[in-house]
Amino acid sequence: MKELVFVGLGLNDENGISLRGLEETKAADSAFMEIYTSLLPEFSLKNFEGLSGKKVHMLSRRDLEEENGKVVLDAAEKGKTVLLVPGDPFVATTHVALRIEAEKRGVRTRIVHGASVISAVIGLSGLHNYKFGKTVTIPFPENLSETPYNVISQNKKMGLHTLCLLDLKTDEQRFLGIREGLEQLLAVERKKREKVIMLDTFAVGVARVGSANPSLKADIVEKLLKHDFGGPPQSLILPGELHFMEVEALISFAGAPEKLRSVVR
Amino acid sequence: MKELVFVGLGLNDENGISLRGLEETKAADSAFMEIYTSLLPEFSLKNFEGLSGKKVHMLSRRDLEEENGKVVLDAAEKGKTVLLVPGDPFVATTHVALRIEAEKRGVRTRIVHGASVISAVIGLSGLHNYKFGKTVTIPFPENLSETPYNVISQNKKMGLHTLCLLDLKTDEQRFLGIREGLEQLLAVERKKREKVIMLDTFAVGVARVGSANPSLKADIVEKLLKHDFGGPPQSLILPGELHFMEVEALISFAGAPEKLRSVVR
Repeated sequence: MKELVFVGLGLNDENGISLRGLEETKAADSAFMEIYTSLLPEFSLKNFEGLSGKKVHMLSRRDLEEENGKVVLDAAEKGKTVLLVPGDPFVATTHVALRIEAEKRGVRTRIVHGASVISAVIGLSGLHNYKFGKTVTIPFPENLSETPYNVISQNKKMGLHTLCLLDLKTDEQRFLGIREGLEQLLAVERKKREKVIMLDTFAVGVARVGSANPSLKADIVEKLLKHDFGGPPQSLILPGELHFMEVEALISFAGAPEKLRSVVR
Repeated sequence: MKELVFVGLGLNDENGISLRGLEETKAADSAFMEIYTSLLPEFSLKNFEGLSGKKVHMLSRRDLEEENGKVVLDAAEKGKTVLLVPGDPFVATTHVALRIEAEKRGVRTRIVHGASVISAVIGLSGLHNYKFGKTVTIPFPENLSETPYNVISQNKKMGLHTLCLLDLKTDEQRFLGIREGLEQLLAVERKKREKVIMLDTFAVGVARVGSANPSLKADIVEKLLKHDFGGPPQSLILPGELHFMEVEALISFAGAPEKLRSVVR
């Protein structure tokens, strides 16, 4: 059967995959995996191969983006093939072109979803999902951009929260941290002076969501800059208007200062 | 150990849970479940109990919202307790109060994430996650509200897509459909006349995401009103400005008309 199934690995390690995803992998003729679009900090390929009973071919960015996933498409034209991807497969847009090309070649495509960093970070924070505006990624300093600042500004004007993902280059083991992300936003603030993010602006940092020891801290930027969140991956939330239940959640789950209650109606 | 673990069931059926979530359930002293905040159309409690080897106590809305989850908190004060929840546990805000109360009682809380309808619908559509604005839920007609229309309008002005979840009352087996959702938006349009949604507006309907036979159709509203999406759960996307890759994805995955190419730069 000519078939390509995109399977989400979920978060953190080899146990983030769904039961359905593992069954699809066991039943596949060929299994491929990429773990460069997102970091699964405790993932073990050896353990995953043990669980699935399948030899997994690990793919590089080059295999998928420069050679357009040729090795995957060729396998999918011969039989049932799975491509294992961190999180929920199409939250990063990287693989959409591959899915289009497969369909063009007459290969049926399906998706087995996994837990995504997007819903996980929002859920862990206790903030309300429907109060988030557009999501943005903060790039590395060498690609300094005003876009994240502008997105936060636009969302705040509507009272909405902003989820800021932080860029990563897994092949170079480089992961943008909460501190660096905040410093970049402050640098843009010094230039634009729109008072979008200042040292006394309230923000939420989240690290290693989906692991056994996620780190979550809500405080003013000045304090977050000094907070030790531990290792990657990390993300940042810039809240808009807070509902009192959101304040209680941040105090209870994220160690926010009690005085936060006084700033919320 | 006094502990309450919120475990995401993911999508569609008992195989949507992660391997980690199943392990947590097996290791628990008490297991509770609610499946009213979202519909898992092919879920079998019997199969889940077989997989987990645990007797699961099914909870009603009344148990969790009127009695504030007392039965869950009492169990968590005696030993390791899991509460199984559809999707990713805190995408619906229903259980945030329970988590706060548990922490107040000195019960440690953790989350095992699952696939959420939010990232799954966006991923299945082929649209780009970072181009979505605020998410909204379209209520039942008896609760007719202008909010969804206004959110779509606001997002569109910024070129952003809107994910519209459709309301459900699982205890009454009532599920708002794509057609009814569109009809409500058109009713608001007739009143407000801001040209946010018309019969020739382009939209995307999605049904049963995460199942073996999800239904996805992109077309003008007039056509979607007549399209048979099959059973629930269903959702709706009102796109803002489309990138050419998004157009190709909608043509390839969602049967969008080829002429959609001509409307996009």
